[in-house]
Amino acid sequence: MQNDSFAAQMQAHLQAAKGPSAAAQVEASARNDVLTKPPGALGRLEDLAIWYASWRGDARPQITAPQVIVFAGNHGVVAQGISAFPAEVTVQMVANFERGGAAINQLANLHGAKMEVVALELDRPTFDFTQRAAMDAAHLDAALKAGWDAVDPASDLLVVGEMGIGNTTAAAAISLALFGGEAADWVGRGTGLDDAGVARKAEVIAKALEVNAPEGPLEVLRCVGGREVAAMAGAIARARVENIPLILDGFICCSAAAVLEKLVEGALDHCVAGHRSAEAAHGRVLEALGKEPLLTLGLRLGEGSGAALAIGILKGAIACHSGMASFAEAGVSDG
Amino acid sequence: MQNDSFAAQMQAHLQAAKGPSAAAQVEASARNDVLTKPPGALGRLEDLAIWYASWRGDARPQITAPQVIVFAGNHGVVAQGISAFPAEVTVQMVANFERGGAAINQLANLHGAKMEVVALELDRPTFDFTQRAAMDAAHLDAALKAGWDAVDPASDLLVVGEMGIGNTTAAAAISLALFGGEAADWVGRGTGLDDAGVARKAEVIAKALEVNAPEGPLEVLRCVGGREVAAMAGAIARARVENIPLILDGFICCSAAAVLEKLVEGALDHCVAGHRSAEAAHGRVLEALGKEPLLTLGLRLGEGSGAALAIGILKGAIACHSGMASFAEAGVSDG
Repeated sequence: MQNDSFAAQMQAHLQAAKGPSAAAQVEASARNDVLTKPPGALGRLEDLAIWYASWRGDARPQITAPQVIVFAGNHGVVAQGISAFPAEVTVQMVANFERGGAAINQLANLHGAKMEVVALELDRPTFDFTQRAAMDAAHLDAALKAGWDAVDPASDLLVVGEMGIGNTTAAAAISLALFGGEAADWVGRGTGLDDAGVARKAEVIAKALEVNAPEGPLEVLRCVGGREVAAMAGAIARARVENIPLILDGFICCSAAAVLEKLVEGALDHCVAGHRSAEAAHGRVLEALGKEPLLTLGLRLGEGSGAALAIGILKGAIACHSGMASFAEAGVSDG
Repeated sequence: MQNDSFAAQMQAHLQAAKGPSAAAQVEASARNDVLTKPPGALGRLEDLAIWYASWRGDARPQITAPQVIVFAGNHGVVAQGISAFPAEVTVQMVANFERGGAAINQLANLHGAKMEVVALELDRPTFDFTQRAAMDAAHLDAALKAGWDAVDPASDLLVVGEMGIGNTTAAAAISLALFGGEAADWVGRGTGLDDAGVARKAEVIAKALEVNAPEGPLEVLRCVGGREVAAMAGAIARARVENIPLILDGFICCSAAAVLEKLVEGALDHCVAGHRSAEAAHGRVLEALGKEPLLTLGLRLGEGSGAALAIGILKGAIACHSGMASFAEAGVSDG
């Protein structure tokens, strides 16, 4: 990795990022203690609110500008027959996002989030990573930068989603490379593979790591990732640097996030897990990252849908924290 | 129970209630099959949307008029020292609801729900049910009717919540009477009891059932319930009759609901469990009712807060179901 590469700059930004405000954390925690409810009665909502407040440096914050970004990319590895859907679905779904017809559009609208779609050279899939590295260093840099640049620094909450036929295979290869274990631990049905397809997928990712033998998290991302996966990593890193809290989505999002955590410890402290998807490997990644999901509703769509659904939970936490009266204000006996 | 009692009328209405539309169910299910997502990829959101559509008799419904009703009552059994908070907190919190300062106000606002507060003779607590029945037949009738009448038939989604110092003890006594087991199975910390308090609470509910020995679900409600618990039952019954889907809240709400299910099988088919609270007995009631919670976030506040938080999940399900494009509309290959 050259020093002037975007990847190296991103890593330096992550290492220098300042993190949450201890003062806001203390103040928000003190506020939480005097709200009109028994201590701890709002459960995880209380922790969420204090966490959000500390990242925003505001003990009584509002969420008024959430952003959802969906990154799309195509994957050479689809030549290995690892997806139930054909590769042309990626570009078709991008058009669906742009016309407002996908699940993520509805969820972004519901929660008042502005949504961007960033299609990454869909007519130029990554290389088939069972043969060679998925991306050259320049491809990786461009994808990371596309993610970084897509984040609006004025946002106060970020969700990053993806679309890319074949990308659960990339996520599985990344997870195997970062966390070890057996190939079979990290593969699932994706959008609808049968048992033979799942077995094939495990062989494909084992071969990918044999052929590429990547060293270090960014090399893992370059060799067995994909453009939309790298763009998600770039966006998650930017949010960390800008102190924008982020809700992690499913397996692909979390594999991108895991690259950052392996690169710089604490790189995901601004992230909460929105949900645990039906793709079993997602639960393993969340566990490895120490992230407890807010929702477990069997979603396995991607697009940022599980994270966008969880915006409502975080908004609920902040609405209670910042809107409730204190015992003194309400004239309520505090037990 | 006299035939002209409100309780008897309510039971007759429940028995005659028509239930969901099979045609809307079939049509919604067919719509779900052609939306631009892999089959089943929205997990439980898909089931929720079809269920909601069938109850509204509309294969492509909207949620535009959710209602939250918070019922409040006082309990003679507080004389037995079973709560961490004094009884005057009930009326203080009612004032807090009315001024918009409680958690439920924030969550109702967040989800665009109109909210009513129904205070039930707070200056006239129920009798101490370790000594005699909590309510006379006339008290029960008045409370059931207050709940029934509070439901706006034009609502398209209902949440019922409660406030009543001492009411986890009533809920525990109801659950013990309806479902059996040991007294200790149904008692928890409520708003913050210590171990000795919990043991005391178990003794209190065991004694309540010894003293009253109620026969039949409505007698259980009258003897060891409370006014706000009965009002919740009345409101849940009305929603069933009006085909208004309802999100169940925590332990007290579910104990009220359980009375109806024991009275008329299927009385809760219009209900989904909003969350599983930190009060352990709530999980037992949900299991007994066969209801899988949407959220498990450690809430134990009551007020309808867990259910109100889950409005966002149901709205997300309906937004996707009714707003997404089909494969044909979007020109997307369906695998």
